[in-house]
Amino acid sequence: MNEFDIIKHYFTKASHRKDVIMGPGDDCALLQVPANTLLAVSTDTLVSGVHFFADMDPTALGHKALAVNLSDLAAMGADPCWVSLAITLPEVDEVWIKQFCAGFFELSEYYNVALVGGDTTKGPLSITVTVHGTLPLGKGLLRSGAQVGDGIYVTGTLGDAALGLQQALGNIQVPKAHQEFVRNKFEYPHPRILVGQALRDIATSALDLSDGLAGDLAHICRASGLRAQIEVDQLPLSDAMQASISQEQGWELALTGGDDYELCFTVSELHRGQLETALSHCGVKFTRIGRMFSGEPNVELVHEGKPYQIVNQSWDHFRKV
Amino acid sequence: MNEFDIIKHYFTKASHRKDVIMGPGDDCALLQVPANTLLAVSTDTLVSGVHFFADMDPTALGHKALAVNLSDLAAMGADPCWVSLAITLPEVDEVWIKQFCAGFFELSEYYNVALVGGDTTKGPLSITVTVHGTLPLGKGLLRSGAQVGDGIYVTGTLGDAALGLQQALGNIQVPKAHQEFVRNKFEYPHPRILVGQALRDIATSALDLSDGLAGDLAHICRASGLRAQIEVDQLPLSDAMQASISQEQGWELALTGGDDYELCFTVSELHRGQLETALSHCGVKFTRIGRMFSGEPNVELVHEGKPYQIVNQSWDHFRKV
Repeated sequence: MNEFDIIKHYFTKASHRKDVIMGPGDDCALLQVPANTLLAVSTDTLVSGVHFFADMDPTALGHKALAVNLSDLAAMGADPCWVSLAITLPEVDEVWIKQFCAGFFELSEYYNVALVGGDTTKGPLSITVTVHGTLPLGKGLLRSGAQVGDGIYVTGTLGDAALGLQQALGNIQVPKAHQEFVRNKFEYPHPRILVGQALRDIATSALDLSDGLAGDLAHICRASGLRAQIEVDQLPLSDAMQASISQEQGWELALTGGDDYELCFTVSELHRGQLETALSHCGVKFTRIGRMFSGEPNVELVHEGKPYQIVNQSWDHFRKV
Repeated sequence: MNEFDIIKHYFTKASHRKDVIMGPGDDCALLQVPANTLLAVSTDTLVSGVHFFADMDPTALGHKALAVNLSDLAAMGADPCWVSLAITLPEVDEVWIKQFCAGFFELSEYYNVALVGGDTTKGPLSITVTVHGTLPLGKGLLRSGAQVGDGIYVTGTLGDAALGLQQALGNIQVPKAHQEFVRNKFEYPHPRILVGQALRDIATSALDLSDGLAGDLAHICRASGLRAQIEVDQLPLSDAMQASISQEQGWELALTGGDDYELCFTVSELHRGQLETALSHCGVKFTRIGRMFSGEPNVELVHEGKPYQIVNQSWDHFRKV
């Protein structure tokens, strides 16, 4: 196959979705958005050497490029539908492309998301994915809806992807039994689609954790005009984390480590029971870590009733613009 | 302003569109697609050093990055609505960003297209734009609808952007009086939105010319299962082209030069009158350059009744994957 044929072969995949009137191969994709729904759209770019190592396993990269975008739909409570993939490749390496597509399409098929278009170009390795989902009219988990007194929750455990990164960089030694777990948390984040959908009628605000809880929760604070207080000893840390570093170091990774792609959301105290019921069907652990207060938009950390400061370990983080 | 503030300042622009329920700043944009319409989506990436010179005027680049995407909506006959901008920058240079945004937003405002999201990342300069438009249900100018006997038409004049590129590369000397015209055709392509909309009920197929007429028209041939015959002396060449190079060289640029972003479309002979009327309101010249025949999908060139071969000038073209 020549370059054009390879690209066409791997990046054009027929979809069984009936709402795809025209998929890849014409000037535009044509899509049928159901009546009485809103369209939710999100775009994320992953740049080689900035957001991932240039030699990252292509299957993991294919998964992650889609997962971080689906995570934005999850944070909005949307149903994933369609995706566009713009990929810039230094060369057309069939083995690499095949593996990338294996990771990408395994995840897209799991959520029945159709690849409807995109662009393949030559240049420094970079991937821009745009996902499209739908939401019932009037729904949508915005960042701006948190209320005074709401509980603050997160799904899963925090900081594991950052632990995986530090393990890969050789900065932290993770015990052998936990190495695969943290590498998977770093390379194969799982978008919390079902949780987001279940939260549609319950949460007052939500976002996904991409840059670390402390910074991300500050977005909810600013958008809602409220102060957040986090009890650091409530932060959910994995067994892998607890077996690898001290509790204080674990809290730092949970608060400042990126790439978790767990959801952070707020729920009124009145709806705690409803929340338990709704999320019990999702198979995802969730933890109450704090509460929203009136006051200057800010994230406050407390431990045993006293203000808590992060001890900055100065680990070598990925920096994003 | 710090880097984050600069990015937020320039890339977050409030929109007056009532169908934008949530613009940039949350996990997803939320958009209201009108009832009884199809959503049209297209994505294009421009990579520095591949699709444009690294030192290209940023205002022109901002215009062009959006224009080439709007051109895809035009080729589908869609109404432009929303756009996502993913831009990767080697550094946060406020002057450059300001100029880029001037070009981008002048065009987006002209067509009332709202910037609803995107991503700004650090890395080698590259721009991926995803545009969203709408179409009445059942409409859409596909590549696959051409019929035997249909006339083949193009808008504007062809090859001028390629002439502008060759001028910039120093390969062709364009007379002074025409230099600005060809540079503008190369740097500021104008998406044929109004023409596309006017063609919705008339054309049997359409696409936009991004890689050169001969190659692009072959897509219509393959999708429609037909042979196209082009009368090369009907190819519309600009005064600038005719003043700069020979007729044969002009035909080559018209047939193989990229970046024209004119529309190529087919119309039944029965609808020639209707076509004249519909396009008379668009202020865009259009020319009948050939006809569709049954036979092996292919583009045939004829001149004075005989087969015509392109004399390949071996100019240094941009190559795309």
